[in-house]
Amino acid sequence: MPMNDKTNTKMNRRDKLREATMAEIRHIARELLVSNGAQAVTVNAVARKMGMSGPALYRYYSSQNELIEALRLDLYSELVNTLTSARERSGATDPECRLLAICRALRQWAVTHPAEFGCLFATPAPMGLERCTNASQSGRAFGQVFLEEIVAIWRTKRFPIPSLEDMDPSLAEQLCKYSERIDGALPPEAAYIFLSCWMRLYGLLCMEVLNQIGFAYSDLEPVYEECLQDLCRLLDIPYEEPVPAGHAGTIRKDRLREAGL
Amino acid sequence: MPMNDKTNTKMNRRDKLREATMAEIRHIARELLVSNGAQAVTVNAVARKMGMSGPALYRYYSSQNELIEALRLDLYSELVNTLTSARERSGATDPECRLLAICRALRQWAVTHPAEFGCLFATPAPMGLERCTNASQSGRAFGQVFLEEIVAIWRTKRFPIPSLEDMDPSLAEQLCKYSERIDGALPPEAAYIFLSCWMRLYGLLCMEVLNQIGFAYSDLEPVYEECLQDLCRLLDIPYEEPVPAGHAGTIRKDRLREAGL
Repeated sequence: MPMNDKTNTKMNRRDKLREATMAEIRHIARELLVSNGAQAVTVNAVARKMGMSGPALYRYYSSQNELIEALRLDLYSELVNTLTSARERSGATDPECRLLAICRALRQWAVTHPAEFGCLFATPAPMGLERCTNASQSGRAFGQVFLEEIVAIWRTKRFPIPSLEDMDPSLAEQLCKYSERIDGALPPEAAYIFLSCWMRLYGLLCMEVLNQIGFAYSDLEPVYEECLQDLCRLLDIPYEEPVPAGHAGTIRKDRLREAGL
Repeated sequence: MPMNDKTNTKMNRRDKLREATMAEIRHIARELLVSNGAQAVTVNAVARKMGMSGPALYRYYSSQNELIEALRLDLYSELVNTLTSARERSGATDPECRLLAICRALRQWAVTHPAEFGCLFATPAPMGLERCTNASQSGRAFGQVFLEEIVAIWRTKRFPIPSLEDMDPSLAEQLCKYSERIDGALPPEAAYIFLSCWMRLYGLLCMEVLNQIGFAYSDLEPVYEECLQDLCRLLDIPYEEPVPAGHAGTIRKDRLREAGL
């Protein structure tokens, strides 16, 4: 039926235009975030930059919250892509190496995108576990990238776990619930190790990105690598030093010094 | 000379009025921070709430930055008072117990003042070490409260330290510079342990206050206590369980369970 076809094509074209406008809005919102901080991302500021009126923009995003939520969704998806690309690029088939590749790509993204990292991880998230928003689902997709490797390590070789009995009962209970929530992919004790790893990485990234340790450290890369060593100990996997850009092997200054160079 | 006296009194009275107005401005700025977030703390918003004009308020704080800096100064000083009061209230004379009291008071303040914690610790600090502002000096006063106890522990009983030789050379160099900056109060190796402790606490507090771990944990107190246990291991000091409010002794549910209660 050609008429229907034509209607569909028309609809599609209109939808595509709408999509393109919405993408442009989010693009400008991100520019504002990066140049002037999260507080600068307002519907009116974006509208002004686009030569639209505020009310016209509200036809695309009906509130500032909705706009920022959409922006966060973009950022999560970019971050997930960055992490999975780094994972594939590493060429590693074992979860240990894949995990290290992911962790390093996370820091790389964080330090090169501090405003974006801040928007995702250093602004208060609404309280309440079950905020069924798109952005929180993207947040889960992000966590999933890490969780998958830890699950793979757990399934293939296990790692040392604490006993629930020795834990504070409230903590043990929370871990059991969380284990259920991830469909038992990890038992509560192994979930504890996963969460400990994530909390260590998160804290360090916040310190660096928010420049809260500048009073002591100006270069946090070696501190991050030490943290990765700790993680490897927790997960009982070998720690592999990062491959310096442009090097095939891993040559570190201390190695050279040890060799008397 | 009575005339001089009178002039002084007049000056003092005017200064006092000015001080009171400035305190009220900061009080309202804090209310805005708590109720609507940092982005709501603008000179105009404060002026509106005080029934002043914006330009009138600029005679007290000449920019939004200056206003927020003044607010941060207040917050740091409140936090330092909170920590030192908890330290005194603990009645402990040994630095181990004093340190635990301070760490617990820090979490207490953070979780009861999330907006204020966010303003001090979860907003990007300007880059560059030597930002000689009042707020950064207050930041140092805050760090000093922790540093003092670690220095006392180091002086009286030492704790295990890593070797600079085994470290990444850039890290070792940064630690040497930091040790100099704190006038050698801790040698670089011991400073490393101090900074590791602080980074662990900081990361956990950010996770809790910014609700970034809500996907797994709803109550972080036991996780914080485990972190304090780790710190005690790092510092080779005994871990003392917190005294529950209203209890003279330390009774924990797991203890009761162990006792079959």
